[in-house]
Amino acid sequence: MDLMKKSIEMHAQYKGKMEVISKVPVMDTYDLSLAYSPGVAAPCIEIDKNRSSVYDYTMKGNFVAIVTDGSAVLGLGDIGPEAALPVMEGKALLLKKISNVDAVPICLDTKNVDEIVRTVKAISPTFGAINLEDISAPRCFEIENRLRKECNIPVFHDDQHGTAIVVAAGLKNAMKIVGKEKELTKIVINGAGAAGIAILRLLLQIGFKNIIMCDSTGIIYSGRPTGMNPVKDKIAHLTNPENLQGSLSDALVGADVFVGVSVANLLTEQHIQSMNQDPIVFAIANPNPEITYENAKAWGVRIIGTGRSDYPNQVNNMLAFPGIFRGALDVRATDINEEMKLAAVEAIASLVSDEELHEEFIIPKALDERVPVAVAKAVGDAAIHSGVSNLFPSPIKVN
Amino acid sequence: MDLMKKSIEMHAQYKGKMEVISKVPVMDTYDLSLAYSPGVAAPCIEIDKNRSSVYDYTMKGNFVAIVTDGSAVLGLGDIGPEAALPVMEGKALLLKKISNVDAVPICLDTKNVDEIVRTVKAISPTFGAINLEDISAPRCFEIENRLRKECNIPVFHDDQHGTAIVVAAGLKNAMKIVGKEKELTKIVINGAGAAGIAILRLLLQIGFKNIIMCDSTGIIYSGRPTGMNPVKDKIAHLTNPENLQGSLSDALVGADVFVGVSVANLLTEQHIQSMNQDPIVFAIANPNPEITYENAKAWGVRIIGTGRSDYPNQVNNMLAFPGIFRGALDVRATDINEEMKLAAVEAIASLVSDEELHEEFIIPKALDERVPVAVAKAVGDAAIHSGVSNLFPSPIKVN
Repeated sequence: MDLMKKSIEMHAQYKGKMEVISKVPVMDTYDLSLAYSPGVAAPCIEIDKNRSSVYDYTMKGNFVAIVTDGSAVLGLGDIGPEAALPVMEGKALLLKKISNVDAVPICLDTKNVDEIVRTVKAISPTFGAINLEDISAPRCFEIENRLRKECNIPVFHDDQHGTAIVVAAGLKNAMKIVGKEKELTKIVINGAGAAGIAILRLLLQIGFKNIIMCDSTGIIYSGRPTGMNPVKDKIAHLTNPENLQGSLSDALVGADVFVGVSVANLLTEQHIQSMNQDPIVFAIANPNPEITYENAKAWGVRIIGTGRSDYPNQVNNMLAFPGIFRGALDVRATDINEEMKLAAVEAIASLVSDEELHEEFIIPKALDERVPVAVAKAVGDAAIHSGVSNLFPSPIKVN
Repeated sequence: MDLMKKSIEMHAQYKGKMEVISKVPVMDTYDLSLAYSPGVAAPCIEIDKNRSSVYDYTMKGNFVAIVTDGSAVLGLGDIGPEAALPVMEGKALLLKKISNVDAVPICLDTKNVDEIVRTVKAISPTFGAINLEDISAPRCFEIENRLRKECNIPVFHDDQHGTAIVVAAGLKNAMKIVGKEKELTKIVINGAGAAGIAILRLLLQIGFKNIIMCDSTGIIYSGRPTGMNPVKDKIAHLTNPENLQGSLSDALVGADVFVGVSVANLLTEQHIQSMNQDPIVFAIANPNPEITYENAKAWGVRIIGTGRSDYPNQVNNMLAFPGIFRGALDVRATDINEEMKLAAVEAIASLVSDEELHEEFIIPKALDERVPVAVAKAVGDAAIHSGVSNLFPSPIKVN
């Protein structure tokens, strides 16, 4: 594939994608005496006196660590920390380009949960926020939960929440087109990894009730004899109110929505025809979706979204994470909480006006410059109103 | 002090000094598809197949972590990781400006030696080298020793070796002026912290034999009843061949060289007058030296070096570390070993020609652009010849 060859050439030409430069002019020894010894002692002394002034005098407040152990990189799986670096640099590039956040990869030489938590905590004084990336489920849930509790800066696992936020925004708008009630809508999510579980949680939160979750063993239900773990036990309790058993095909009968975060070319014509009328399909396996745009259209899917930029309705977490980090950093949030995630869903969805909304346009384009601005504003406001902003301590403490 | 106020203003205006930018052009979705999904999979797959190609396709090979626990920052002491950030950013600025190395601060929320070693090892896949900075003695010695053994990238504690290298280079040239024999020269080092001990080791290595080391308790000797520790026991064995006891004043009687890495305004006229003829004094306490330039000259010091840029002979580790990291990274060194440090000494010293050499010019100026180039070349060559270059595996394995 030519794109792959081009990408190799580009990465070899530049030896990676990011560099670290000075944003202050340093032309002579006087400038140096301000930026380094002896002048640099002044901000050190100020921060020693008042710890929170580290946000005034250093890069911390705009600095994000993109942390991975390389255990679940793209569709490539556990390729280790070194091979994960190009993706983490790519993420840093997007954060800078889209929302002017300074970010660096931190690829870890350990897959041990305790060790990852300990390491991220240890390096956290340097950073304004932590973006967890490409860490395999179910370890990613424990790592994120513990770090959110133990760090005083936001910790956000983008594979979970970024994807979930964009799916929820797209689905919110798609529902307007088909005109169905949330409470009566049956959703099948295929793939019980980090993204699938986060999508499930967020869709429940915004009011969907009937969600079936499938993994490679089929429908997840309470007491299923094989392929369960504590996280899937919890899923079984949250989902599948009719306690269906069987395969993905069984789950899809009468479903209104399919959300795939699984593998390429999974859906057949029969699958689609077994669904309820006006089916909505988000086929976001990467790079090849669970169903192609062409097949989806030919087989009667009313609204199809994929992860691909060359078709309509690209479900791309670029719509979410740059604005979310921008918003969280701007108000010195100590967390990225549910209120902030819901605010991001709303901000993304509402950028598609009722006049523009149609089957081929349910979410903004990936590079729409209004998106990060709107998301950052909404997320920052939500942080303030939910009482997790250090810069604007809220009058309304929600927690 | 106006400089301090200016420095605070500058740091507040820019909110720190460093930023992380893309070095590849990203103008449209095609560029994005090379730098990020789906094209980014290509370098990931290559690195997964061949781990060492991470140096070809990522920023790793030019990326340095400046790691501190904030326990010994400037003359300010244990001010913690946040307050250390301005210094670490300053160091990153120098690395970029002087030798085009990309560096980021990593300020650690732990002072536990095991934890620091574990954390640095865990983050090491991301980086081409580690610069330890402002970690207090004697912990810094164990941390550096363990990390040098356990990491496959260079680990260099600049407070030790950077300072030692510049002192050694300056002393080498100063000795030419006074025309004394190394073996017969008596040196007093005052200050047994990271820098003092590294200076001692390097001066022994280049052939000095009679070195007396003092700390706040006075001369260090075997069996001294107070203020000893395992590191100082070792010092006692390496130094003080006549087993002198007493104060700094006792040590200085008949000394040819004084090297101070201690506190301001320590040396009196009597001290200087008790020294041998043609005394050499390196008074590098920062920002105020053990003796002012003016007093040194008035009291008969022949050659005086300080840490200050506003007097001749500035002993500044800016002369060493940027070129050392450049050289180590250029040849993908796995270590910064003694051969490389000695090569740096030689490179710095030899940039002062015999014609230029005089009492007021024994080392190059801090911003002399020839220095990093010469040091990098010498250090890279030494890495190759001592068999620690991964890029040019040497025909002559020294280790």
